[in-house]
Amino acid sequence: MKPAMIDVGIIGASGYTGAELARILSNHPQARLRVATSRQHAGRPLADIFPQLRGRVEVVCEEVAGEELFARADLFFAAVPHKTAMELVPGILAAGKKVIDLSADFRLRDVAVYEEWYQPHSCPELLAEAVYGLPELYRRQIAGARLVANPGCYPTSVILALAPLLGAEAVLADTIIIDAKSGTSGAGRAAQTATLFCEVHDGFRPYKVGRSHRHTPEIEQELAVLAGRSLQVSFTPHLLPLSRGILSTIYATLAPGFDRETISALYRQQYQQEPFVRLLTGGNLPATQYVRGSNFCDIAFAIDSATGRIIVMSAIDNIVKGASGQAVQNMNLLCGFAETTGLDGLPLFP
Amino acid sequence: MKPAMIDVGIIGASGYTGAELARILSNHPQARLRVATSRQHAGRPLADIFPQLRGRVEVVCEEVAGEELFARADLFFAAVPHKTAMELVPGILAAGKKVIDLSADFRLRDVAVYEEWYQPHSCPELLAEAVYGLPELYRRQIAGARLVANPGCYPTSVILALAPLLGAEAVLADTIIIDAKSGTSGAGRAAQTATLFCEVHDGFRPYKVGRSHRHTPEIEQELAVLAGRSLQVSFTPHLLPLSRGILSTIYATLAPGFDRETISALYRQQYQQEPFVRLLTGGNLPATQYVRGSNFCDIAFAIDSATGRIIVMSAIDNIVKGASGQAVQNMNLLCGFAETTGLDGLPLFP
Amino acid sequence: MKPAMIDVGIIGASGYTGAELARILSNHPQARLRVATSRQHAGRPLADIFPQLRGRVEVVCEEVAGEELFARADLFFAAVPHKTAMELVPGILAAGKKVIDLSADFRLRDVAVYEEWYQPHSCPELLAEAVYGLPELYRRQIAGARLVANPGCYPTSVILALAPLLGAEAVLADTIIIDAKSGTSGAGRAAQTATLFCEVHDGFRPYKVGRSHRHTPEIEQELAVLAGRSLQVSFTPHLLPLSRGILSTIYATLAPGFDRETISALYRQQYQQEPFVRLLTGGNLPATQYVRGSNFCDIAFAIDSATGRIIVMSAIDNIVKGASGQAVQNMNLLCGFAETTGLDGLPLFP
Amino acid sequence: MKPAMIDVGIIGASGYTGAELARILSNHPQARLRVATSRQHAGRPLADIFPQLRGRVEVVCEEVAGEELFARADLFFAAVPHKTAMELVPGILAAGKKVIDLSADFRLRDVAVYEEWYQPHSCPELLAEAVYGLPELYRRQIAGARLVANPGCYPTSVILALAPLLGAEAVLADTIIIDAKSGTSGAGRAAQTATLFCEVHDGFRPYKVGRSHRHTPEIEQELAVLAGRSLQVSFTPHLLPLSRGILSTIYATLAPGFDRETISALYRQQYQQEPFVRLLTGGNLPATQYVRGSNFCDIAFAIDSATGRIIVMSAIDNIVKGASGQAVQNMNLLCGFAETTGLDGLPLFP
Repeated sequence: MKPAMIDVGIIGASGYTGAELARILSNHPQARLRVATSRQHAGRPLADIFPQLRGRVEVVCEEVAGEELFARADLFFAAVPHKTAMELVPGILAAGKKVIDLSADFRLRDVAVYEEWYQPHSCPELLAEAVYGLPELYRRQIAGARLVANPGCYPTSVILALAPLLGAEAVLADTIIIDAKSGTSGAGRAAQTATLFCEVHDGFRPYKVGRSHRHTPEIEQELAVLAGRSLQVSFTPHLLPLSRGILSTIYATLAPGFDRETISALYRQQYQQEPFVRLLTGGNLPATQYVRGSNFCDIAFAIDSATGRIIVMSAIDNIVKGASGQAVQNMNLLCGFAETTGLDGLPLFP
Repeated sequence: MKPAMIDVGIIGASGYTGAELARILSNHPQARLRVATSRQHAGRPLADIFPQLRGRVEVVCEEVAGEELFARADLFFAAVPHKTAMELVPGILAAGKKVIDLSADFRLRDVAVYEEWYQPHSCPELLAEAVYGLPELYRRQIAGARLVANPGCYPTSVILALAPLLGAEAVLADTIIIDAKSGTSGAGRAAQTATLFCEVHDGFRPYKVGRSHRHTPEIEQELAVLAGRSLQVSFTPHLLPLSRGILSTIYATLAPGFDRETISALYRQQYQQEPFVRLLTGGNLPATQYVRGSNFCDIAFAIDSATGRIIVMSAIDNIVKGASGQAVQNMNLLCGFAETTGLDGLPLFP
Repeated sequence: MKPAMIDVGIIGASGYTGAELARILSNHPQARLRVATSRQHAGRPLADIFPQLRGRVEVVCEEVAGEELFARADLFFAAVPHKTAMELVPGILAAGKKVIDLSADFRLRDVAVYEEWYQPHSCPELLAEAVYGLPELYRRQIAGARLVANPGCYPTSVILALAPLLGAEAVLADTIIIDAKSGTSGAGRAAQTATLFCEVHDGFRPYKVGRSHRHTPEIEQELAVLAGRSLQVSFTPHLLPLSRGILSTIYATLAPGFDRETISALYRQQYQQEPFVRLLTGGNLPATQYVRGSNFCDIAFAIDSATGRIIVMSAIDNIVKGASGQAVQNMNLLCGFAETTGLDGLPLFP
Repeated sequence: MKPAMIDVGIIGASGYTGAELARILSNHPQARLRVATSRQHAGRPLADIFPQLRGRVEVVCEEVAGEELFARADLFFAAVPHKTAMELVPGILAAGKKVIDLSADFRLRDVAVYEEWYQPHSCPELLAEAVYGLPELYRRQIAGARLVANPGCYPTSVILALAPLLGAEAVLADTIIIDAKSGTSGAGRAAQTATLFCEVHDGFRPYKVGRSHRHTPEIEQELAVLAGRSLQVSFTPHLLPLSRGILSTIYATLAPGFDRETISALYRQQYQQEPFVRLLTGGNLPATQYVRGSNFCDIAFAIDSATGRIIVMSAIDNIVKGASGQAVQNMNLLCGFAETTGLDGLPLFP
């Protein structure tokens, strides 16, 4: 599929990732947003729900109505919750369209793991076909896929940070501890007391501590691929009083023989050609505000020789590189567009 | 001047408006950023000072060094404080280059007014030539100018909100009260206790109350032009605990014979063709978060028939439409580019 | 009623004003919190719902169950929404107990006005008896009341700011414009999209513009009492991205013969003995962060001689002086305690 | 020393910890604030610098002037930077007064360690006498001390979290990783670009990664005392976009034989009588907003059996339990007052 221009649809456009897809696509020279669905807001222009889109986004939300709707676009982004996604995806594929699914439904290759952390899977046969949509690792497979499982926000920040180390066995795989912090947009736009302004503002807290966050198996799956062996990590998410951004601070014990220079070389080798990974050096450290609104993943590391540990830090915008931006990056690969098309905006700071 | 591509320079690149110019210009297809000056950071890449620019902005800061430097670009943005600007602008003009000055030095046409609110003016002869760079009002004059005085942030939000009313004598000019609220980026990047995070966060305050803010004469000058008579307003600025955004709430007594419909018609007539003014209707109200990072000015009004007053509200991003975005809009006009070039990004929300 | 110690109850303890009452009462040497009700959380310790209360507040939430419950305290704070309040208050009074009602149900003396802005009133006969609980104006009446209508947050900030002017006819009553800004705790703790963190954070907006906010008639009622004549104001509320705080900026045209000194004298005369009103002078201006968590109302004014207007600014913590702190102040008056008991904590800054 | 009332002074009152001391002391029934010094603000009332103190704090700042000044109080809080503190403390002691030093100058018992991390020590002979002012560990020694070294904010949060584990050898001491996050008030009130509102707001970043933060040796010193052996930790601080609060997330490998129940028992045994340590159970986790403005340290732990690690989380307000509140707690112990006097305010939430 190498068209000059495609028509796309967003299934579940009324959440934050849906709105972000609309924002990014509005400046994409090769994609037209033709369809947007929202059960709750059917009949309303998307720009009514998200006033920031006024004047540039014309699409009107409609209900998911099956084949007729699927006929109106070449590629669909599924921006609905897990479980809802797997109910819709087979129909879209059956209509001969491509799908980039932002939910968790097709990320885990092992259906047993999926069902342990989520619920029964209604189309496990698609798991083998789905490609994990992290372009920096699976660029070639994405290009030919029908179904891309867009990675979770935390996993994106963690896997990119660790990939060069695990591939080279530069750290002891069983010593990995991930202390991750996310902005509140990751919790979505559903009304709930826990994410009211007054509950989050001027505060900070951990949540789902001790192997209970559903991104744990996704992280472990991909790190295992990189390491060539199964492994288990400690992963602790925290909630930041800001809208966009994930910063992961990752600790691991260095394997013998690795030092600052060899590690630097590993990162350069893996990422120096990557358009969206920025390696920081000279003591510069990642910060969420320096990637806000962009598709960048900023990475730095430090070595604590006293303890023999490496500390890797990565920052992304959770709804861009952690969701909608990465989804468009995947769309670009799927469609044979230049990978950075529509994604070259610089971060918004301050 | 109708080139396909120009070279530009930023004088004073290490402030927030300088960085924002670099961000916007990095996606401008017809402008190359060739020169950036910073006394304090000479010799450092601009992307070292502003890490969000890493990977895309290559320019290295240098000291302002006179003619040789001016020879290296076709157009300069002066993003230095007032007084410094007027010391530099004559030299740039003398070198045959265009200037868009983001300071206050060339905004006031009456040198006496300037000197009352600021200090002695060193090149008053340029005041007559300078064009007030509000494209929605002075588009034609900007196109032919050598020197554009880019409007202040508060004045932009106020003048655009009131222009349709004053032109039509729809309000009593002496009843205008402007209650304006600005994010903290308007205070600049200089280290000072008053704008430390802990002083601003989770708080809100008025400042420079009672005819003491320097944007007062600028507002009154332009409103007088629109009204065809001199007038005096009450203008009260406030400091918001957010980075970007100005929301102005403006009160005035309606002139006899004007009602919701006639007022609506005035706004539509003035702005329906404007690419960056969005008129909100149906009870929708402006909010700073819906213009964040964009060049839009959102405007709505309400009529309080019990008191005979109109309340006009406008929202802009103070460092885009209120500074650097408007400056690029002016550059586009000056250079014969399409006015929206490089400025069509949608607001970043959430 | 002049006891050394009383037992109190909170009807509707699971909202922010309920929690704030519990916080304040926990340090009150003459009041014991004996009863807390919450339909939603019956059976749960209040400190489970509000973890900040852990270790000091022992009360367990229960359902409102009528007389038996009313028997267990001497005085009740009704911290439930309007309408619910008027259904409960007659029963509490019938049980021979005092009530301080934080809802709007007993604030408006004219039942027709109440019913125009709210809904039918189920016990209008109590309106005449209810005392408007603004101690600075009604201290004597509060001391003897059975039922105190605790003022709204915006009205508290506005009425205290204007009282000295209106009593002395120092401003033209029909020129009053109130531009008010509130933190988000005023919107309560119910789950709704509009007050999610991501919707409010880093943004600012007006709402209910043009004579549509329900605090308008309350403000006009009390200003009319002060002015000795009916009047109508323009009142525009805005939503601030912070939890606690209201800042009102109020404009009015000065009456002939009044200047800075005479106005200063009016404020000093009215407030210099008041324990919770701080008059700022010497160019100092109110800021919400300097009253955060305290029962203070900070007031300053400026005179704009060019336009003949006075600008009065006041700041309160909307859930202390604007709600729960004022309620405890009223309790102190009702019970013959020293008025400042339990309320002498200084603001928390930064 | 068991007086009913003492006079106290604050050396260095114009920083955030100085202001917080003034706030807490204003409600302390047994301490009068008689002296406040500030080089920069000598001659100004402290309530002019910190408007939140208006109306309740009368003290006027003066320059440190030696013996005469020391004669006017019984006990001094040194709230000046390290190095300045050690220049002042000997004089205060020589005047026969007690000192609670909030700087780092007397926290490290080994002068070589101090000089490695700071600079030469001018009165090393006092290091042996100084008591580390963490009441939960050194209550008895504090009571008899002349000189108390008030702990650092990060160390307070870490040492309290780990004390029960290390004393019982419940974790492997060399596996301790501390991922700590602090609000911005910890950076002080000096004007600097890095802590401007626009640099911190809506962002999050690590800093001083890899054994470079000066609280590292302080943490290791006290953990070593508890463990009965020297040890080295990984400690990574991060900057939160909020004013007050530290949350530390601490990882360690459990020693054989310890499980949830035995660990719970250790925490209960150590802390159940402590007035300012709140142990959270039943899945409740610490959050900075639930300790804001209070002297509490909230602690919870989780066990990740898959990896054999324990995750301990603690939250404090960095300028209360992490600085000024703990200093007053130490003062209470020094003076024989009830330990919680003046410190029983509940956290301010929201």
